[in-house]
Amino acid sequence: TAEPSSRPAKVQELNVYEMNERDRGSPAYLRLSKKEVNSLGDLVPFSNKIYSGDLEKRLGITAGICVLIQNVPEKKGDRYEAIYSFYFGDYGHISVQGAYLTYEDTYLAVTGGSGIFEGVYGQVKLKQIVFPFKLFYTFYLKGIADLPAELTGKPVAPSPTVEPFPAAKATEPQATVKNFTN
Amino acid sequence: TAEPSSRPAKVQELNVYEMNERDRGSPAYLRLSKKEVNSLGDLVPFSNKIYSGDLEKRLGITAGICVLIQNVPEKKGDRYEAIYSFYFGDYGHISVQGAYLTYEDTYLAVTGGSGIFEGVYGQVKLKQIVFPFKLFYTFYLKGIADLPAELTGKPVAPSPTVEPFPAAKATEPQATVKNFTN
Amino acid sequence: TAEPSSRPAKVQELNVYEMNERDRGSPAYLRLSKKEVNSLGDLVPFSNKIYSGDLEKRLGITAGICVLIQNVPEKKGDRYEAIYSFYFGDYGHISVQGAYLTYEDTYLAVTGGSGIFEGVYGQVKLKQIVFPFKLFYTFYLKGIADLPAELTGKPVAPSPTVEPFPAAKATEPQATVKNFTN
Repeated sequence: TAEPSSRPAKVQELNVYEMNERDRGSPAYLRLSKKEVNSLGDLVPFSNKIYSGDLEKRLGITAGICVLIQNVPEKKGDRYEAIYSFYFGDYGHISVQGAYLTYEDTYLAVTGGSGIFEGVYGQVKLKQIVFPFKLFYTFYLKGIADLPAELTGKPVAPSPTVEPFPAAKATEPQATVKNFTN
Repeated sequence: TAEPSSRPAKVQELNVYEMNERDRGSPAYLRLSKKEVNSLGDLVPFSNKIYSGDLEKRLGITAGICVLIQNVPEKKGDRYEAIYSFYFGDYGHISVQGAYLTYEDTYLAVTGGSGIFEGVYGQVKLKQIVFPFKLFYTFYLKGIADLPAELTGKPVAPSPTVEPFPAAKATEPQATVKNFTN
Repeated sequence: TAEPSSRPAKVQELNVYEMNERDRGSPAYLRLSKKEVNSLGDLVPFSNKIYSGDLEKRLGITAGICVLIQNVPEKKGDRYEAIYSFYFGDYGHISVQGAYLTYEDTYLAVTGGSGIFEGVYGQVKLKQIVFPFKLFYTFYLKGIADLPAELTGKPVAPSPTVEPFPAAKATEPQATVKNFTN
């Protein structure tokens, strides 16, 4: 039953901002190691908001968990194993897994998706802007049809002062994707 | 070294019932948020039984964890990020990740598998029947050889009164897959 | 936009040893079930060292979490759902998910990767050698370019007495991959 695959192998870039606007009770730092320094045993469920790379559209949320692996004193930061998804309203979601280092950019694996992201694979670059409130992601996606235009606008260059456009932050209908995840 | 892929891209449907028969100590609701209302910080490890869509065969179990993301009072329910696997005895397993909403159907990503599910990708529809005891899943699987007949029988239509056939519930040998996971 | 995929479908074997040298505070057994016997509700974050199959190179670490699913008294062991990644320094990482049984070999799903493992799929065989300190993995990887020679040396046969070569254990530069994960 093997047939030639028609899964598109071309790479599509998708830029997304993740913003913690401090209104979702996130992150929940669970100090289960019971140690004063962040240590293996600590778990960090989290959920933040995501915006399109051009900051013009509220897309949805992230949702998942970070497993504290190691405190790295010489970097004044931590290594986490991150397992989470990005939700894009009616478009569906992308799941990812890999390292989140609070002091350095990383690449995570794209492990799958739903909706327009069904069958997706590839990787995603995580760029920290303001720990832990602003992050910028560039997905390198394969296996899916062309992304819709409202997801692929020219990204605003990451900087500590970037903010979503007010209409997107206010989730005005023209500044969200359809049925944005909230 | 790139060679044309012979990975089958056709979609195969696989229907599965998940039943909590209250004999596995599942779920374990860990109220780590220490809040009275379900809140970010709560974690829910779980493991239930799975049956074929025609309810004639005990297949195995589910196993994994739900991360409470958000209580949604207007829906009288919760959003979870679900990370788990379906075990099918000697056939192997399928891993999935995505949203579990207690008030609405969702699609999760198929992130991989083993055995006959090695190299699988696609998505799975999760349909809640009786919260949190009966769920019905339709997998849309790609990348694998034809599924065996005992997994692809005509599904019983989901309803609150569905029950596995007594022989399957009793795990009689003719009513299980080989070395069903328990 | 569907184009024929050029994703390599040939299988490449990759052998890796995971060693717990008791210097990373791992595993962190979180007895959240509050039961004396290991039970659903317990969580086990962990991170160990990994070496090439020929034991000549320190590669990096594992990082992730095991969800206790079930104590299996007749096997004097436990079933876990394992969700973790293997880090290979500058080469990138591989994420996996599936069953970890303390009393029996299992196959886990390869769910994705980064770096030279971008787009990877397949499965991995987990072989327990000395619980819980030494494990041997054979990855069956697809979707990626040919692996570098330093990862594909002839594996040392798994046995309870295997140890990494002293230079690898001491992370001497010639006995590590570039920027090995630590």
